[in-house]
Amino acid sequence: MNEVMKRYHEVASLPIYRNRNLTMMTDLYQLTMMYGYYKSGRMNQEVVFDTYFRKHPCGGGYVVAAGLEQAIIYLMSLRFTEEDLAYLRSLELFDEGFLDELRRFRFTGSLYAMPEGTIAFANEPLLRFRGRILELQLIESAILSFVNHQTLIATKASRIVHSARTELVDLSADTIMEFGLRRAQNADAANFGARAAYIGGCIGTSNVYAGQNFGIPVMGTMAHSWVQSFPSELDAFRAFANAFPDKTVLLVDTYNTLQSGMVHAIQVAREMRERGQELLGVRLDSGDLAYLSKEARRMLDEAGFPDVKIVASSDLDEGTIRDLIIQGARIDQWGVGTSLITSKDCPSLGGVYKLVAEVDGDEFIPRIKVSENPQKITNPGYKRVVRLYDTEGMATADLICLDEEVIDTASPLELFDPVHTYKRKVVQNFTTEELLIPIIENGELVYKIPTIHEIRQRVTDQLKRFPEEVKRLKNPHVYHVDLSLKLWTLKQELLLKSQTGAQAIEQDPA
Amino acid sequence: MNEVMKRYHEVASLPIYRNRNLTMMTDLYQLTMMYGYYKSGRMNQEVVFDTYFRKHPCGGGYVVAAGLEQAIIYLMSLRFTEEDLAYLRSLELFDEGFLDELRRFRFTGSLYAMPEGTIAFANEPLLRFRGRILELQLIESAILSFVNHQTLIATKASRIVHSARTELVDLSADTIMEFGLRRAQNADAANFGARAAYIGGCIGTSNVYAGQNFGIPVMGTMAHSWVQSFPSELDAFRAFANAFPDKTVLLVDTYNTLQSGMVHAIQVAREMRERGQELLGVRLDSGDLAYLSKEARRMLDEAGFPDVKIVASSDLDEGTIRDLIIQGARIDQWGVGTSLITSKDCPSLGGVYKLVAEVDGDEFIPRIKVSENPQKITNPGYKRVVRLYDTEGMATADLICLDEEVIDTASPLELFDPVHTYKRKVVQNFTTEELLIPIIENGELVYKIPTIHEIRQRVTDQLKRFPEEVKRLKNPHVYHVDLSLKLWTLKQELLLKSQTGAQAIEQDPA
Repeated sequence: MNEVMKRYHEVASLPIYRNRNLTMMTDLYQLTMMYGYYKSGRMNQEVVFDTYFRKHPCGGGYVVAAGLEQAIIYLMSLRFTEEDLAYLRSLELFDEGFLDELRRFRFTGSLYAMPEGTIAFANEPLLRFRGRILELQLIESAILSFVNHQTLIATKASRIVHSARTELVDLSADTIMEFGLRRAQNADAANFGARAAYIGGCIGTSNVYAGQNFGIPVMGTMAHSWVQSFPSELDAFRAFANAFPDKTVLLVDTYNTLQSGMVHAIQVAREMRERGQELLGVRLDSGDLAYLSKEARRMLDEAGFPDVKIVASSDLDEGTIRDLIIQGARIDQWGVGTSLITSKDCPSLGGVYKLVAEVDGDEFIPRIKVSENPQKITNPGYKRVVRLYDTEGMATADLICLDEEVIDTASPLELFDPVHTYKRKVVQNFTTEELLIPIIENGELVYKIPTIHEIRQRVTDQLKRFPEEVKRLKNPHVYHVDLSLKLWTLKQELLLKSQTGAQAIEQDPA
Repeated sequence: MNEVMKRYHEVASLPIYRNRNLTMMTDLYQLTMMYGYYKSGRMNQEVVFDTYFRKHPCGGGYVVAAGLEQAIIYLMSLRFTEEDLAYLRSLELFDEGFLDELRRFRFTGSLYAMPEGTIAFANEPLLRFRGRILELQLIESAILSFVNHQTLIATKASRIVHSARTELVDLSADTIMEFGLRRAQNADAANFGARAAYIGGCIGTSNVYAGQNFGIPVMGTMAHSWVQSFPSELDAFRAFANAFPDKTVLLVDTYNTLQSGMVHAIQVAREMRERGQELLGVRLDSGDLAYLSKEARRMLDEAGFPDVKIVASSDLDEGTIRDLIIQGARIDQWGVGTSLITSKDCPSLGGVYKLVAEVDGDEFIPRIKVSENPQKITNPGYKRVVRLYDTEGMATADLICLDEEVIDTASPLELFDPVHTYKRKVVQNFTTEELLIPIIENGELVYKIPTIHEIRQRVTDQLKRFPEEVKRLKNPHVYHVDLSLKLWTLKQELLLKSQTGAQAIEQDPA
């Protein structure tokens, strides 16, 4: 077995993936359309679909692409079981010939995609599928659910991690832990969400299943119920320190943070030190975290425990973290729950999956979808995404072009805004990076699935190559994503040719 | 095998449940606390935990309880595998004796819960667990994730269904379809979300896997890519009508809704009628749905097709649906996606799981959690929830009382607001319903899992027994949820006794 398939089987046999068949997780209309293609003799028509999104979530300036691993496992294991076919037969929509087609169904298409951890922007294809329309129709819904979800959470995590990264605190270490399991939108959202959060820059998760499956560091110590279940807070703290002498972080807000919790924590820290042990930290989970953390820090320092860390959790998000830092909160690590695991203020990424070309022999016949909303008009054709870097290695623009185009890095390249075309800039002495790389070729996996640590590192490496302005939490600088002149011209031609394109703006009330 | 277990095995063997082991899906601190209890000799201490939430989501006046089936399957199949134990060993936190305890781990506790589909209110226990602290600690995170998620989506669905139920449209039939798969927060959110949406009142889902597993009607016909993939819109419509002569709903907005889509739809409707078939409907998916639906209705009526239905989808939620209805939109069915499947404006339900008592022989020793935030103070003790109905069968109030209390329906009962205690009302001639019923007794399932249709019917039946004012989308009437005098008194006593309770308000900056 080659390295690629060896790694594939390693990943596919993880508890979270194995024995799970989501082939039937599709919208009914995919199946009715597949049946329609089958009935009209068009099911083998080769086509191209792009997956992309139109808007960065949460008002940010980029996304962190994620979900490809899950998409690969799904595509490589697509199978209709007899049980599935029996259910479909019971719907009385399909004939037996079609069910036979489904029985034989395997993914035999091709996928090019941005590797997970790539910094990506609106309107760029994250995944580009080529294959039989019968196959590409089935997979739309599941692929979007995986990629939309993981990309959303990785992006949210990146924002939150960024909010706690400031010169006011330690620049060298990230400090966000994912604590959202109980508020996640069910199990997959918790588990794949923890994965995406780690990719986005979190240092670990409270979710043991995610730790086990994905190799993410797991974190956490005690809840209020621990403290409550003992006759006194001091008893509870002592019992924990006995069980975990090396890893004790005490939750100090069950009764009264400063007058009870911190006093008892310091007492236990002293008792531990007498035994040659050191208390690791205290956790604040309610009250005013700026005030309490400053007071807690002062108490710990005065008692001779300057190395005891302060961990905070309690309805945190990127805005609150930034505010607390500005207010001088003395917090060393942050546990973020609901806002991260649900991306609370922007709980969906509107990724779409659009037909952009039909294949006729060696030729790609571009397809466009017209809309009265200009932002919803698709970019037609079989395309690539190229990132341009300047001589310092900083990303200056992304270019979406037709696959056949050659970008000559030796000559100056004029870029222009696809909407406000008078906005132009010339780049020269640039290097390029192809963002869409081969993942599956004609049903065969050709991509070695990276480890989660490699993916996480890619995010860090990539983010360094973008200016801070692009990473601003609100109203970021808009990074240039331009169309090549050839693609732009093709799009305009198709729009003009579209028999109804010119009328598309007349859909609203007069 | 008895009826209860026969039904259990039927449900547990559904593709979505079988071969899936989420025992490890817990927060690390649950395991460290379990280890602490084990090390301090307290792991067999019997305790009581309540699951409840503090606030209705989306500004509404109630929730629809859901997620119990998933919780039952999870509890009954809890098992640590050797693979799980090997991972836990690798964390270097636990000793072998503890891992042996986990190897033997089964759920042997008891669960009382509100049946799915119960209308429930803030602060009422939805689930009440009794059992060994070792067991009850493990399950918190997963149980909350299931119940929080499904209750949230069932509630959101109920709101959306309610928004489309008005005298302006057909009162007798509901009209909301769940179309959110592609925007769901991964697979479980899509599948269990579709289940919860159906429980909450949706008439079906686009998600075939949810249909297969839960017996929900599946719905949907075609996407824009179908229309685009044909040389012309008319060809695309004709091909679909040929494949599904009985079930054709044509998507009319790929090019121009009124000037192209509707014209071609009517042409195909005429051709179908000549063959003795009838077009079922048209679907609008963009543009101004009020204007377009009125024009589409007029065109269909004038062409002699008054029975062709108009289906609408496109960023709908309860507010937009209500607005469209008020504006006279002529829409017969609504497909709701993102806003429903993610509960977009309120994507989490803050359900909590709190220790409320320890068991000492036959006695329950109530436990309370104090907080500087009065809303976060728990209701102590082993409790029941009783719903009071008036002589017309309308719900008048819910009463949370201690389990041992007897509610005498023959005498007048004085209820009072637990915060503003001067607010009192006397109820008499009432009947009662116990909302928490036995589900699992000492590890043995005693509850026959209902069908999803029975659950959905329970929602309908229950909602009829609450006044419309409670169901208002915003600023609803606050339904009375009171504590019994005995419980209220116990809570006050415990608060006063709490050594630090009186100081709890001093946690904020002076």
